[in-house]
Amino acid sequence: MIESIRGRSLLSLHDVTRSALIEVLDTAESFVEVHRRTVKKVPALKGRVVASLFYEESTRTRLSFETAAKRLSADVLSLAVASSSVKKGESLRDTIATIDALGIDAVVLRHRSSGAAEQVSRYVPHVRVINAGDGLHQHPTQGLLDAFTIRQVLAERRGVLSVDTGSSLFTGLRVLIVGDVLHSRVARSDIDAYVALGAEVRVAAPGTLLPVDIATWPVQLVEDFDDALEWADVIGLLRLQHERGAGSFVPSLSEFTATFGLTATRARRLRPETLIMHPGPINRGVELDSTVADLPAAIIERQVSNGVPIRMAVLYLTVAGTTKETA
Amino acid sequence: MIESIRGRSLLSLHDVTRSALIEVLDTAESFVEVHRRTVKKVPALKGRVVASLFYEESTRTRLSFETAAKRLSADVLSLAVASSSVKKGESLRDTIATIDALGIDAVVLRHRSSGAAEQVSRYVPHVRVINAGDGLHQHPTQGLLDAFTIRQVLAERRGVLSVDTGSSLFTGLRVLIVGDVLHSRVARSDIDAYVALGAEVRVAAPGTLLPVDIATWPVQLVEDFDDALEWADVIGLLRLQHERGAGSFVPSLSEFTATFGLTATRARRLRPETLIMHPGPINRGVELDSTVADLPAAIIERQVSNGVPIRMAVLYLTVAGTTKETA
Amino acid sequence: MIESIRGRSLLSLHDVTRSALIEVLDTAESFVEVHRRTVKKVPALKGRVVASLFYEESTRTRLSFETAAKRLSADVLSLAVASSSVKKGESLRDTIATIDALGIDAVVLRHRSSGAAEQVSRYVPHVRVINAGDGLHQHPTQGLLDAFTIRQVLAERRGVLSVDTGSSLFTGLRVLIVGDVLHSRVARSDIDAYVALGAEVRVAAPGTLLPVDIATWPVQLVEDFDDALEWADVIGLLRLQHERGAGSFVPSLSEFTATFGLTATRARRLRPETLIMHPGPINRGVELDSTVADLPAAIIERQVSNGVPIRMAVLYLTVAGTTKETA
Repeated sequence: MIESIRGRSLLSLHDVTRSALIEVLDTAESFVEVHRRTVKKVPALKGRVVASLFYEESTRTRLSFETAAKRLSADVLSLAVASSSVKKGESLRDTIATIDALGIDAVVLRHRSSGAAEQVSRYVPHVRVINAGDGLHQHPTQGLLDAFTIRQVLAERRGVLSVDTGSSLFTGLRVLIVGDVLHSRVARSDIDAYVALGAEVRVAAPGTLLPVDIATWPVQLVEDFDDALEWADVIGLLRLQHERGAGSFVPSLSEFTATFGLTATRARRLRPETLIMHPGPINRGVELDSTVADLPAAIIERQVSNGVPIRMAVLYLTVAGTTKETA
Repeated sequence: MIESIRGRSLLSLHDVTRSALIEVLDTAESFVEVHRRTVKKVPALKGRVVASLFYEESTRTRLSFETAAKRLSADVLSLAVASSSVKKGESLRDTIATIDALGIDAVVLRHRSSGAAEQVSRYVPHVRVINAGDGLHQHPTQGLLDAFTIRQVLAERRGVLSVDTGSSLFTGLRVLIVGDVLHSRVARSDIDAYVALGAEVRVAAPGTLLPVDIATWPVQLVEDFDDALEWADVIGLLRLQHERGAGSFVPSLSEFTATFGLTATRARRLRPETLIMHPGPINRGVELDSTVADLPAAIIERQVSNGVPIRMAVLYLTVAGTTKETA
Repeated sequence: MIESIRGRSLLSLHDVTRSALIEVLDTAESFVEVHRRTVKKVPALKGRVVASLFYEESTRTRLSFETAAKRLSADVLSLAVASSSVKKGESLRDTIATIDALGIDAVVLRHRSSGAAEQVSRYVPHVRVINAGDGLHQHPTQGLLDAFTIRQVLAERRGVLSVDTGSSLFTGLRVLIVGDVLHSRVARSDIDAYVALGAEVRVAAPGTLLPVDIATWPVQLVEDFDDALEWADVIGLLRLQHERGAGSFVPSLSEFTATFGLTATRARRLRPETLIMHPGPINRGVELDSTVADLPAAIIERQVSNGVPIRMAVLYLTVAGTTKETA
């Protein structure tokens, strides 16, 4: 188990301890303040170079990481890998060898293959690798920012100021994850984070969108979404992954919505304080109704906004942590 | 009417007053000096983040904006949106919501839909939106840099030093806009700027390349390009917009050139001091002859070069202006 | 002959003198130290703008140049030209005119046409042009980094500290260039550098992969690769240029490998100190065996890693040199 991500790569939340998670959340908390300044910049990573390699494009995640790196004063090399590397037949291994040889400090990697980030970190042990989503495996910064957002909202509601106390807010928290679990790396990272922090997690999904090894996960299955609506303190909706062919796993989009969508009717049955989350981009009218996305309990924009401080924290701890160890 | 663009988005020149225009021109004047230094940089927007979102690619305009932002010490996030956002079905609205959540200060937006910039500014009232061209609607920084270039050349010729006097140079100035007015956002922004500054504007174009509401524009129509050659102090040629299908509005390119191209023959009939302008990129041999583009009165490269100080002025006034208001 | 690249464009190594080459190598030496720092940055080009225009994509070379520019504190404008400029029919000339008008200090250009960099430097005499590979012509920074890598390794081995003495290490050095010489701009730049520095160069290649004017080159042809294995102090393998159709010049890849590949069998016949080099990306199993790439004498990763200090030196001398001359 990893007790701290300082000076290490961040590949997965699966083997990260509660105290390592809380260290990231607390560090992110200190960066939220930077976000509110006019000059939103600290010199923490001045002179360091962060390369963002997105083999799958995602405007949202890439922008969030690059903004985070620039706020830490790092130099950012942004690669539109999709088009570039294929042409000359450069393998991932060759591209990464280049990164290593150039003396780049950290690589933010998104790749369609599960395990790509881990493989890369084995090639280049001196470079910090931040997994920004690998296939159906993990998306650790999403798990961290979701946990951070929940803690932030609950702490505000209960007037909790101390961050230590804040983390205990997860104890016994009831989280319901709904939708395309099979294709969701977000679900895997969220569940790892929530469970490590002490929450109770249930999962509601059509049988065809559940992974075969779901029985080994630290979650309880819910047959009927409707039965769990009142139980949940937090509802984490998942994006139906059209681009990974999820559409062929459900009879039709409207049937998916009828049974597992957060429709306006279902939203009325939630307790008013139940938080509604979605990692974006939303398929409006599929996973949740447009009117539901606008409820005060829907904290979807806050999730996006917390992406920057969480990614600042992760870059800071993984990269600046190196110096600490080697100094 | 907008009396100053300080702390506001810049969406159009249609509702901008003469004094607001002159404020931009005068601010740009002060940035021309920076352009001449070895270290072409001022700290005006240090710590601010400017995102450039080009849904239609334009090397020229994007480079000009990004150079301007970097000279002001802003951090720039450059998005190759064309490829990225379509893939995962992210809507313009979702991308902009991300921008907002990330705490980005300004968005430079080019989009094929008329009104896109205005729509975006309604989504994200706290972010400054700079319209870098929206469909057939407006391209305000082009209008500003064209006006700036005219003022600069006339002031040099007449030995005018004071900028106040400089702006009065537009009074009674005779500008002829020629070509594909229908598809030209440049024409719309140019005309707004020139008319507000006191110039008299005429338009020469084939009937098929005139907008239906041309009668409501503050311009006079010219039937025959040749009749207006000697009248004009400035000739503003427009790009024939192949990529918007302009080719099908004229019988043939050679017929367009025969009647509305600035051929070498026509150029000989101009008064030597008549300025020749084109927003680029030129279709050589169509809108104007290659030899004409090389005449001393053709100030096309100066237009490009003035793009940087004008865009520095616009970014500075719209973004730094915010602090002033909120402080 | 060019006695120093200070304040000049770097288009080719063909007309660069030994002392000009050594000036670059010695300058690069001083930047290697920067590479080892935590804060890998010097303020040498602060406020200068470097545009990287890659009409052919190459992740490796582009990253290397952009990292070098950022380490010198220059601002970098990165253009994905492939997609952008074609759309609106912007010619290379128009794009470069824009670069010029924007006041950009240096252009790093890769282009599929031989002579493109030279053509561009004639358009814009005030901008420094760095050729990052033009067609089948030249790739000067690759030649420089290869020479730099050889000098570095030989100096380490012989315990030579003084850089002046270091450069004399090339005198009589026996270099064998192997493979697709016809399509290789790397071969041309390498040979220019090695010969100018005093090395003896031989070339081994199938007749179909030799240029027609090879007799005029300052090299000796080797009929049989095997006969030259023991002769060589350095073996410079070339990439088989699939993407330029090199495959159709050889009967089959396996026959190419059988006669001109550095197989494990051939590698055993080399003297242990013979250096093995390759500009990358490697076609594994074609030009050299995977096990050979891992031998201690294979210094391929060091070539990549030396790309950054060499490109820092080239950018520094060509761009900062300007001020010196004009001041």
